Amino acid sequence: MPDFRPPEHQVAGHRASANKLGPLIDGSGLFYKPLQAEDRGEHELAFYEAFSTHAAVPARIRDTFFPRFHGTRLVPTESRPGEPHPHLVLDDLLAGLEAPCVLDIKIGAITWPPSSPEPYVAKCLAKDRETTSVLLGFRVSGVRVVGPGGTVWRTERPEVKALDTAGVRRVLRRYVSSVADEGMDCALAAAVYDGKRGVLSQLRELKAWFEEQTLFHFYSASILLGYDASAVAASGGEGGVRVKLVDFAHVAEGDGVIDHNFLGGLCSLIKFISDIVPEIPETQPLGPS
Amino acid sequence: MPDFRPPEHQVAGHRASANKLGPLIDGSGLFYKPLQAEDRGEHELAFYEAFSTHAAVPARIRDTFFPRFHGTRLVPTESRPGEPHPHLVLDDLLAGLEAPCVLDIKIGAITWPPSSPEPYVAKCLAKDRETTSVLLGFRVSGVRVVGPGGTVWRTERPEVKALDTAGVRRVLRRYVSSVADEGMDCALAAAVYDGKRGVLSQLRELKAWFEEQTLFHFYSASILLGYDASAVAASGGEGGVRVKLVDFAHVAEGDGVIDHNFLGGLCSLIKFISDIVPEIPETQPLGPS
Repeated sequence: MPDFRPPEHQVAGHRASANKLGPLIDGSGLFYKPLQAEDRGEHELAFYEAFSTHAAVPARIRDTFFPRFHGTRLVPTESRPGEPHPHLVLDDLLAGLEAPCVLDIKIGAITWPPSSPEPYVAKCLAKDRETTSVLLGFRVSGVRVVGPGGTVWRTERPEVKALDTAGVRRVLRRYVSSVADEGMDCALAAAVYDGKRGVLSQLRELKAWFEEQTLFHFYSASILLGYDASAVAASGGEGGVRVKLVDFAHVAEGDGVIDHNFLGGLCSLIKFISDIVPEIPETQPLGPS
Repeated sequence: MPDFRPPEHQVAGHRASANKLGPLIDGSGLFYKPLQAEDRGEHELAFYEAFSTHAAVPARIRDTFFPRFHGTRLVPTESRPGEPHPHLVLDDLLAGLEAPCVLDIKIGAITWPPSSPEPYVAKCLAKDRETTSVLLGFRVSGVRVVGPGGTVWRTERPEVKALDTAGVRRVLRRYVSSVADEGMDCALAAAVYDGKRGVLSQLRELKAWFEEQTLFHFYSASILLGYDASAVAASGGEGGVRVKLVDFAHVAEGDGVIDHNFLGGLCSLIKFISDIVPEIPETQPLGPS
């Protein structure tokens, strides 16, 4: 029996506990996401099944930007002993990172599929307006940064929900800063955001696909950014920057139309991150600071 | 006194009459737009004043994609004799076209500025969901095509409002077809959509600006396409294709954030038009058909 446990690096969504279902990892590089209630789980499963085998999805896009899907599995849970729950089995996107720094960003000004029932639209719309979604085309759902000496900085739920435009800018700077105080040196911005396979480069590749793809509309999906603080500090390299799409419980068929809602939010995020990058002098060494 | 009259080529909005205010032209290349009620007129005027002189707006963008603004003028109207009404004085975007073909497309999945009062949000949201705005990121507001012999095809209000995705595709094909029947030969697509200074080329230039500009958010603005059916038929040229933004009563400050809502809709429109262009064999002569 694998040693299932909640991932340390989880920054958004319910955390698995005695009372609640939540994602689990087993230390072998797999991530177990409990099938959600109210058909959402079935819907997400159907998306993974369709997407994994879709001939029109370029392999490069699937492999680079999506977690690999390994089917489903009944997993024993703490919340309901003796009643194993079906889980999606996915790659653990942060496996192998010694000090994973994570940023979860829900993309799109609109988070409800157009075919949604009225109460769901009203609920989502209220959240989209209260948060930065309508204004910025995205909102931060969670963040975790590991600083020197292994100190962990993370945002709690109410704090994340209350972020305004300036707060979002601060989080995007904090995510690539080596210090935990208000200074925010953005010491890792050049490596993490601007590197050859850094966040910006990957987001731009993703954008090019979204300008063309008309297969899926990714309502309420997130972009998960990950890098290894230890690796960046040790080598001055990019720390294995990862850019992945997650959370597909509300994906809709594209029916020949591009996902303008996701694309618009993605372009906005690219602009926000680009605004941070030029602050780093190009000649600055990228070693630990 | 100039000879004010409603423009023949108007495809959206109220038409000037004995009962209603509406835009007027005077035959000298100017277009008079009555200031709208409920502060919208003042708001649009304020936008034109700010935009016309904004140092951060590239001259090339302003001159290519926006009507030139010539201040305001009190104009006598048929609907209220003896009570001249203030009008915005703008370039008539279709001046000089012998047989103007016009397509008015309201851009954006969201047409309400985030700061709007609740009833206005509800009203706009309902329209955005009933029409194709939420689904496609844009909706057709009106179309007028002049065919051989000067026959005019135009859509009426209820018909335009009821367009679904397939209907939008038909209108975009009809706009560049020389025949009025259901055949839709798209005979002018290569010239109008794909020409060197055709619609696609201009929309892509506009898109590049929207990826960067954070000055204004163009809620509820439209892109007006225009070309001259006579010129295309006579010369096989592009017929002076025009791509202009209009209707700025709901423009909001950008505050350092890109207009992801307009940009997403613009990208969707580009994809729709691109889908039509490859149908034309590249070797086909562009002469009259």
